[in-house]
Amino acid sequence: MNNDRPARPANPNWGGRFSEGPSEIMERINASIAFDQRLYAQDIAASKAHAQMLVSQSIISAEDGGAIAQGLDTILREIESGSFKFSAALEDIHMNVEARLRELIGPAAGRLHTARSRNDQVATDFRLWVRDAIDTTDQLLQDLQAALLDQAEANTATLMPGFTHLQTAQPVTFGHHLMAYVEMFGRDRGRFRDCRARVNESPLGAAALAGTSFPIDRAQTAKALAFDRPMANSLDAVSARDFAAEYLAAASITATHVSRMAEEIVLWCTSGFDFIELTDAFTTGSSIMPQKRNPDAAELARAKPGRIVGSLVGLLTVLKGLPLAYSKDMQEDKEPVFDAFESLCLGLQALAGMVRDMKARPTAMAAAAGAQYSTATDLADWLVRMLGMPFREAHGVVGAAVAHAAKAGQTLAEVPLDDLRKFEPRITDDVYSVLSAEASAASRTSLGGTAPERVQAAVTEARQRFLAGESA
Amino acid sequence: MNNDRPARPANPNWGGRFSEGPSEIMERINASIAFDQRLYAQDIAASKAHAQMLVSQSIISAEDGGAIAQGLDTILREIESGSFKFSAALEDIHMNVEARLRELIGPAAGRLHTARSRNDQVATDFRLWVRDAIDTTDQLLQDLQAALLDQAEANTATLMPGFTHLQTAQPVTFGHHLMAYVEMFGRDRGRFRDCRARVNESPLGAAALAGTSFPIDRAQTAKALAFDRPMANSLDAVSARDFAAEYLAAASITATHVSRMAEEIVLWCTSGFDFIELTDAFTTGSSIMPQKRNPDAAELARAKPGRIVGSLVGLLTVLKGLPLAYSKDMQEDKEPVFDAFESLCLGLQALAGMVRDMKARPTAMAAAAGAQYSTATDLADWLVRMLGMPFREAHGVVGAAVAHAAKAGQTLAEVPLDDLRKFEPRITDDVYSVLSAEASAASRTSLGGTAPERVQAAVTEARQRFLAGESA
Amino acid sequence: MNNDRPARPANPNWGGRFSEGPSEIMERINASIAFDQRLYAQDIAASKAHAQMLVSQSIISAEDGGAIAQGLDTILREIESGSFKFSAALEDIHMNVEARLRELIGPAAGRLHTARSRNDQVATDFRLWVRDAIDTTDQLLQDLQAALLDQAEANTATLMPGFTHLQTAQPVTFGHHLMAYVEMFGRDRGRFRDCRARVNESPLGAAALAGTSFPIDRAQTAKALAFDRPMANSLDAVSARDFAAEYLAAASITATHVSRMAEEIVLWCTSGFDFIELTDAFTTGSSIMPQKRNPDAAELARAKPGRIVGSLVGLLTVLKGLPLAYSKDMQEDKEPVFDAFESLCLGLQALAGMVRDMKARPTAMAAAAGAQYSTATDLADWLVRMLGMPFREAHGVVGAAVAHAAKAGQTLAEVPLDDLRKFEPRITDDVYSVLSAEASAASRTSLGGTAPERVQAAVTEARQRFLAGESA
Amino acid sequence: MNNDRPARPANPNWGGRFSEGPSEIMERINASIAFDQRLYAQDIAASKAHAQMLVSQSIISAEDGGAIAQGLDTILREIESGSFKFSAALEDIHMNVEARLRELIGPAAGRLHTARSRNDQVATDFRLWVRDAIDTTDQLLQDLQAALLDQAEANTATLMPGFTHLQTAQPVTFGHHLMAYVEMFGRDRGRFRDCRARVNESPLGAAALAGTSFPIDRAQTAKALAFDRPMANSLDAVSARDFAAEYLAAASITATHVSRMAEEIVLWCTSGFDFIELTDAFTTGSSIMPQKRNPDAAELARAKPGRIVGSLVGLLTVLKGLPLAYSKDMQEDKEPVFDAFESLCLGLQALAGMVRDMKARPTAMAAAAGAQYSTATDLADWLVRMLGMPFREAHGVVGAAVAHAAKAGQTLAEVPLDDLRKFEPRITDDVYSVLSAEASAASRTSLGGTAPERVQAAVTEARQRFLAGESA
Repeated sequence: MNNDRPARPANPNWGGRFSEGPSEIMERINASIAFDQRLYAQDIAASKAHAQMLVSQSIISAEDGGAIAQGLDTILREIESGSFKFSAALEDIHMNVEARLRELIGPAAGRLHTARSRNDQVATDFRLWVRDAIDTTDQLLQDLQAALLDQAEANTATLMPGFTHLQTAQPVTFGHHLMAYVEMFGRDRGRFRDCRARVNESPLGAAALAGTSFPIDRAQTAKALAFDRPMANSLDAVSARDFAAEYLAAASITATHVSRMAEEIVLWCTSGFDFIELTDAFTTGSSIMPQKRNPDAAELARAKPGRIVGSLVGLLTVLKGLPLAYSKDMQEDKEPVFDAFESLCLGLQALAGMVRDMKARPTAMAAAAGAQYSTATDLADWLVRMLGMPFREAHGVVGAAVAHAAKAGQTLAEVPLDDLRKFEPRITDDVYSVLSAEASAASRTSLGGTAPERVQAAVTEARQRFLAGESA
Repeated sequence: MNNDRPARPANPNWGGRFSEGPSEIMERINASIAFDQRLYAQDIAASKAHAQMLVSQSIISAEDGGAIAQGLDTILREIESGSFKFSAALEDIHMNVEARLRELIGPAAGRLHTARSRNDQVATDFRLWVRDAIDTTDQLLQDLQAALLDQAEANTATLMPGFTHLQTAQPVTFGHHLMAYVEMFGRDRGRFRDCRARVNESPLGAAALAGTSFPIDRAQTAKALAFDRPMANSLDAVSARDFAAEYLAAASITATHVSRMAEEIVLWCTSGFDFIELTDAFTTGSSIMPQKRNPDAAELARAKPGRIVGSLVGLLTVLKGLPLAYSKDMQEDKEPVFDAFESLCLGLQALAGMVRDMKARPTAMAAAAGAQYSTATDLADWLVRMLGMPFREAHGVVGAAVAHAAKAGQTLAEVPLDDLRKFEPRITDDVYSVLSAEASAASRTSLGGTAPERVQAAVTEARQRFLAGESA
Repeated sequence: MNNDRPARPANPNWGGRFSEGPSEIMERINASIAFDQRLYAQDIAASKAHAQMLVSQSIISAEDGGAIAQGLDTILREIESGSFKFSAALEDIHMNVEARLRELIGPAAGRLHTARSRNDQVATDFRLWVRDAIDTTDQLLQDLQAALLDQAEANTATLMPGFTHLQTAQPVTFGHHLMAYVEMFGRDRGRFRDCRARVNESPLGAAALAGTSFPIDRAQTAKALAFDRPMANSLDAVSARDFAAEYLAAASITATHVSRMAEEIVLWCTSGFDFIELTDAFTTGSSIMPQKRNPDAAELARAKPGRIVGSLVGLLTVLKGLPLAYSKDMQEDKEPVFDAFESLCLGLQALAGMVRDMKARPTAMAAAAGAQYSTATDLADWLVRMLGMPFREAHGVVGAAVAHAAKAGQTLAEVPLDDLRKFEPRITDDVYSVLSAEASAASRTSLGGTAPERVQAAVTEARQRFLAGESA
Repeated sequence: MNNDRPARPANPNWGGRFSEGPSEIMERINASIAFDQRLYAQDIAASKAHAQMLVSQSIISAEDGGAIAQGLDTILREIESGSFKFSAALEDIHMNVEARLRELIGPAAGRLHTARSRNDQVATDFRLWVRDAIDTTDQLLQDLQAALLDQAEANTATLMPGFTHLQTAQPVTFGHHLMAYVEMFGRDRGRFRDCRARVNESPLGAAALAGTSFPIDRAQTAKALAFDRPMANSLDAVSARDFAAEYLAAASITATHVSRMAEEIVLWCTSGFDFIELTDAFTTGSSIMPQKRNPDAAELARAKPGRIVGSLVGLLTVLKGLPLAYSKDMQEDKEPVFDAFESLCLGLQALAGMVRDMKARPTAMAAAAGAQYSTATDLADWLVRMLGMPFREAHGVVGAAVAHAAKAGQTLAEVPLDDLRKFEPRITDDVYSVLSAEASAASRTSLGGTAPERVQAAVTEARQRFLAGESA
C-alpha cells in the first residue's frame, strides 16, 4: 500500500461545492483507473459515436464534433503507443480521456459530455468490452473443439476403459471420450452466444438515469457501435449488470468443463494409468526430484474454476440488494470479469495446447480397457438377447460368473464354457464373441454410442456443426 | 440423525458378489429417495417411453410392454394418491418404482431395464424435471411482469426521486422505475428460455456410458418425451450437469433482481421514505412492538439470493475436476436445484403479490422528487441549450448556484433571478420553466426516458413484447 | 408447493392492528416451523431459565414460574414422544410452544414473554443449538482421528509412493500419509473450539434490541444455560450471526479436508493404483455392470464441500449489507447451518468408517513406491553429502542419470556403477545403499519425516495430543 | 495478453531431461512471479534462517553460509531499492532470488537448496506473509474500534430510532448503536488471533514432502523465524492451505460487518434519514448532477464482501478434492489472499475514516426516535409492571391503542388519558412518564441495554478490553 501520496486538490469536475480534496484513503478506495484503463478503446469509440450523433442532431456544431473526433483519435494513438500519461487523481479512464481532450482541443471538449453521463458511458464501454471478450472466448472454444476433433478422429478406434466411479465400467474408444468434450464446449459456446445477444444493447443516451431533454438519436449511436438496439429503459440501462454476471456464469460453467478434462489429463499421466504422454512443452520438472514430469498446465487448468466461480460469487454478492439506479458498489463489476476472462482464456489455450500435444499410449489403454471384467455387461446383454432372459435376471447370473472368475484369477473370456454353464446352462460358445473389449466397443452402435464407425460419423457431423462456416 | 435403523440385506440388484449389506452410515449417505422421489412422474413417463420403444424395436414383446405400461400407470396412481410405500432400503426413486413394478407384474418388470442404465435414466428424469421447472419459472416471471406493468401504467406520471448512490439525483416517474424491472425480468426469462433449449435433449439410450448393442431408437424416445433431439454423445449424456448449473445461474441472476426490488420495497416502507404502503397481507406485526408493520415478505425476498447463489456454488464445486463418466458425486445435483427452484418461486410470487398490493403515496414521493436540488441537471442543460455553454462549464456554474441555494436554505426554483445571474449573467426568466420536478421529468423524452408519454409508450410496447401470445 | 392451505386468521400475537390475515404466499414465505422445530429443546431450556430468573427477580410470581416450568416440561415430553401437534399457522417453534403453554396453564403463559422478545429468544436458541452441533462435530472429528491413528500405527512402515502433481515423487509410508490427515483434522477441531468460545455468549435479555426496563439478571440466565457470559451489547446480541458464519466456515474447511482424503480413496481404489481394498460395507454395485465395486461413500464425501461451501456463501450473502438490528432476512440463517451440520457429520462418519474398513495392499503400494525413479532425490542427496557437490549441481547429474536409465529401461538401482560414473566419476558402490525405496524412507529421519521410527513416534505423540483426556 | 514473447530455453533447474522449452502458453499459465514477488522479504528471511541452520548443523561450511547471507542481504537491498530485475522466465520469486544469488556468489548459491524444496519454501514464505497480514489487519481493526469508541462516547445519550425490519422499533442511543460494531469487530479480531496461532507453525524442513536425510534442526529455523513450532508432519506441511482459507473466512466475516455498517452510513446519509453528515473527504460529486454528495466510500466498503467472499470460494474450490501432497493447483492460493487483504484493509480504513469524519445530526435523529409509536413497548411494559397484566395481554391492549392513535393522527404521548382508558381502565397519569423517547431509552438499564449510563459504562469497559495494552 502506498501511503505517501501527496494530498490532491478537489476534482474539478465535481463543481464548486467541494472545498477540500477527498482524503487519501478515499482516493485509494475510489480510483478505478488502475483497472478500467483496459476500456480505453471502447471509451473512445463510444465517445466518437456520441459526438457524431450530437452533430447529426445539431446539438453541437460540426466544427466542435470534428475537433472532438480528431482529439480522440490522437488520444487513442497516444495510449496505444504507450505515450499517454494516466493519472490516478483523475480517477477513471473516462476522466483521463476527457482531461486530455481538453488539453488537446480546449473548451470544445466540454461539449462532448452533453446529454451523457458517466453512468451510461461506463455501461456502454463495459458492454462493448464484454462483447469483445465473448468473441475471443468463442474463438478459443472453437479452436479447442478443433483440437479435440483432430485427436478424436485419430483415435476413433483406440480402445480405453470407460469409467464410472473411476472404476472400469465398459470399453470405449478414446475418440468417443474426447467427443464428449466437443459437445460440452459446444454448449458452452451456445451459452456465450446467448449472453452476447443480451449484452449487445446500447445504454448510451440513458444519461444519468432518466434520459435527457436533448433531442438525441439513440438508434444512431447504437448502430454506430454495432449494438442490436438501444435499451428500452434508462434506469435499467445504467443499473443493469446482469450481462456481466451472465458472462461470469457462462465462464464458470465452461471452466468446470475445462477442469474435468484437466483432471483426466492429470490422471492419464499418472503412472497408474499411463494413458497419454505430454511433451516437455506442457510438463515441468522438479527442483528436487529430477525424474519428475509434472503436468503443471493441466493442474492449473483444473484449478481455474476457483477464481472464476469466485468472481461470479463476488459480482452476485455485490449486486444483491442494491437499489436502483447507479451505486458506487457497481465499480466492483469490472475486475472480476477481467480476471475471469484472462483465467478462462489461459485455461482454454492451455487445454487446446495439451490436446494437440498429447500422444495416446494405445497399448496401456487397451490393456486397461480389457481388464476389470469390463465386458460383463456384454455378457448380460448376450443372455438377454440370445436367451430372452429378463435383464435383471441376467445381471444376477453375470454377477455370480464375475465373482467366480475373480476368485479363479481369470478374465471373463478365460472362464471355460463348462464353468460359465454352471451359472446358466444355456450359454453357448457364441458368448465368447462378445467378451473382448474390441467386440464390446464395436457392438455399441446405438446413436451416440462408442462403436468406432459411430465415433467417425460423430466427428464428421460435429465438424459440420461446430467448425463449418464459423466466424465467431 | 437416526442411528437405530436395522441392518439391511445386500441390495438384490447388485448381483451375487456382495455378501454383506452396506454399513448403516453407507446407507444414510447413499440413499437419495428422500429427495429424488420428486422425480416420480418424470421417471414413470421416461420408463413408459422406453418400454414402448423396446416393443417397437422388437427388443421386448408387446405383451411385456403392455404389462409394463399398465404397471407403471398403477404406480403413478399409487404415488399420487399417497398409497405408495417408499423404501429407503431401495435407495432411490428408480429402484422403488422398479421393485414395485416387479411386485405388480412379475419377471417382465426385469425386461424394462434392457438397453438402459440408471445413469441415462436419472439424467433423463432430471432433465424432464428441470424443463418443467423452467416452464413454471417463466410463468411466474411473466405474471410478475404483468403485475409490474399494471402498476407502471397506473403511475406513468407519478413523480418520485430517481436515486444514484441513494442520493436524490433527478426526478423520475414511479412507472418508469417499475418498468426497469420489467426489462430485467424480461432478460431473466430469456436466460431461462435459452437454458431450456440446452436442457431439452434426450440422454435416454446412452445406457451406462457407452451406448448399447441393442437396436434401440433414441429418436423415438426423445420424441415421445418431447425432447428436441437425442444427445449426440453417450459419455456426455450421462456426465453432463451443465444444464442444472445453467438453471441455477439463471435463477441466481433472477434472484438478484428480486432482491434489488425487495430492498427498494423495504426502503420505500421505512418512515424516512414512506413512498408506498403495503397491506396486512404482506406485512407482519411484532411480538413486542405492537405498532410495527414489518415488510417481512420483502425482506425474505431480498434474502433469497443467499441460498440460490449458495446452491449454484455448491453444484459448481461438486462438478469441478470430476472425471467422466458418472460419479456418485453427481447425486448432489438435485437438492440444490430443488431448493433453488422453490426459493425462487416463493420470491417471485411474493414480489408479484407485493407489487399488486402496494399503493403509491404520491404526495410523499412528489415532495421527495422536488427536494435535494434534483433539477440541477436541468439547469445545466438549460445553460448548454440556451447559452451554448459547454456542458462541463455549465456544470461548474450549477455547482456554485446549488452551494449558494443550500446556504440560503432555498430550492433552486426559489433562488431569485438576480442571485442566479451572479453565477451566469445571461440567465433569463425562462430558466424557471425547467426547475420543477414535473417539468424535469416531462422534458426527458429521449428514447427510454422518464417523460410520462414515453413511459406510457414503453408500457404498451412491453405488453406486446412480453405478454402477448405468451404461453410459457 | 402446497397451494391449497385454507386462509387463516390474523396472528393473535400481532395485536389489534391487523384486520386481515396475511396472504397465503406470505404465510408460505414467512413460516419457519418446518425447520426451526429442531430448536425445540433449546427453546424450552431457554424459556425455563428465563422464567426462573423472572421469579428470582420478583418480576413474576413463584406460582406462575412453577406453572410455566411444569408446562414447558410437559411440552418437551410431548414433542419428544411425537404427540405434539405443530402448526404452520403459528409460524415458528417459539409460537408453537407458547400457544401450547397457554392451553396447558392459561394466562400465566403470557407472563413468560415479559422482558424478552422473539429476537433475543431466537438468537439464544440458535446459539445453544450451534454449541451442541460443535460438540458433536468435535466428537466425530476425534473419532476420525482415532481411526486414522489406528491405521497409521498398523502401517508405520508400509511403503507407498509419495506424490506431487500426482506423479511419484519420493517413497513415504502409508502411516505417514495418514498422519497428515490427523494433523489437518486436529486443526479443524481447533477451529471449532475457537468458534465455540464465540458462540457461547448469551443474548438473552437483550429483548427486542434495546434491553429492558425490567430488573432482569442476565448473568443468571447465562449461567443457567452454561453460557460463559451475557453479550455486552443488546443491539449486537440480536443482530449478530457471525457465530453461524464461523461455524459454516470451519465446516467448509473441514469438508475440504474430508474431500481431499475421499479423492485419495477413490484413486487408491481404482485399478491403476489398487492400493487399498474397501469391503462391501463401503462400496456399492452397479445395476448394469455386475463386476463393479464403486466407492460411493468416498465419492459422496468428496462432494460434500459443495453444499457446505454453498451454505457458507448463502449465509454471507444474506448478511451482506444488512442494517441493524433484526431483519427478517436473518430467518435464512438456520437451514444452511442445519444442512451443513448434517452433511459434515455424514462425511466425517463415512470417512471414519472407510478408514477403519480399508485394508492396505502392501505389495502394490511397495511396487509403486519403488518405481518412477522415486529415489532420484536420494541419489542427489548422496552426491551432496558424500562428494560435497552443491545441490543444484547434483540435481543436474541426477537428471542426466535418470534420463539414461529411462532410455535403458532400468531402475536407478539397476544402472551399473560404470554407467553412473559417466555422469559423475566419483560415485562409489556405496550409492546403492540409498537407491531402494525402503532405504529412502528409512533415511528421512528429520522431525516430521517419513522414517518409520518417526512415524511411530508421531502416532504416540498425536494420541497424547488429540485423544488423551478428551471429552469433546 | 502478451503473445509475442520469444521462445525460451528449458529451465536449467529441471535437470537434463528436458530438451525443449515449455510452450509459450505454458509459461504464461505457469509463471507466478507477477504476484509472488510480494513474498520477497519472507523468502529472503527464510533462506537466511535455513542457511544459518545448515551451518550450525555442519551441513554446509560457515564460509558458504556467510556468502549466502551476504548475498541475500544484497538482494534484499536491490529489491527494496527497485534495482532488482525480475524475470518471468525464472517463473517465481524463489528462482529469481536464487539465480541472482548465483550471479553474486557463484556455486555456493547451489548449496542453499540443500535439504529444502520449493514445496516447504513456498509454504514457509506464505505463512510468514499471512502472519504479517494478520497483524496489520488486527491493527486496522483496533484503530476502527478506537474510532467507534470515540464517536460512541460523544454520543452516549444521542437519541436515534432503533430499527428492526428497517421500521422504527424502540429508541436507542447513537452511542449504543456504534458500540454494537465495537463488539462485532472485537470478535473479528478474535478470529484473526485464533487463525494466527494456526498459521504460525513452520513447514521448513519438510522438503519436497517426506522430510530429509540431512541432519537438519527444524526447531532452530522455526525459532529464527518466530514460528511457535515446526509442523508435525512433512506431508501436511507442504499440502496444507487451510491457514489461507481460514484467513479468507475471517476476512469474509469481517467484511460482512464492514458492509453492514457501510449500508447504514448510506442510509443515514440519504435525505429520508439525514442522521449524519460526512465531509467532502468521504463523499464525491457527480459529473452531471452538481448538487450530489455521494457516499462513495461507504458504497465501496459495502461492496467489498463481494470480492472477499469470492476469494474464499475460489480457494476452497481449488482445494476441494485435491490429493496430497503438493499439486500445482495450489499456486492459485496467493492471489485471492493478497486481493482479500488489500480489499479488507481499504474497507477498514475507509470505515474508520468515515466514523471519525461523521457528524451526528441529533435533531433529526431525536425526531425519528420519537416517531412511529416507538414507545409502544414501554406502554406495554408499564401495563405489565404496574397492573400485573400478562405481557401478551398488555401487547394486545397497546396494539389497539396504537391503532387508535394512528387513526387520530396522534403520538402515543398525545392520546388523552380518557382515550387510553378505553383500552384499559386502570391506566393512570403515571403512564406518560414512559412515553417519551428519552424516558424510554433511559429506562433500559439492563446489562447491555441502551440507557446512556449503561452505554458510558460499556465504552469504558470496552476501552479496557480492546485497547488497553494492545500491541497487535
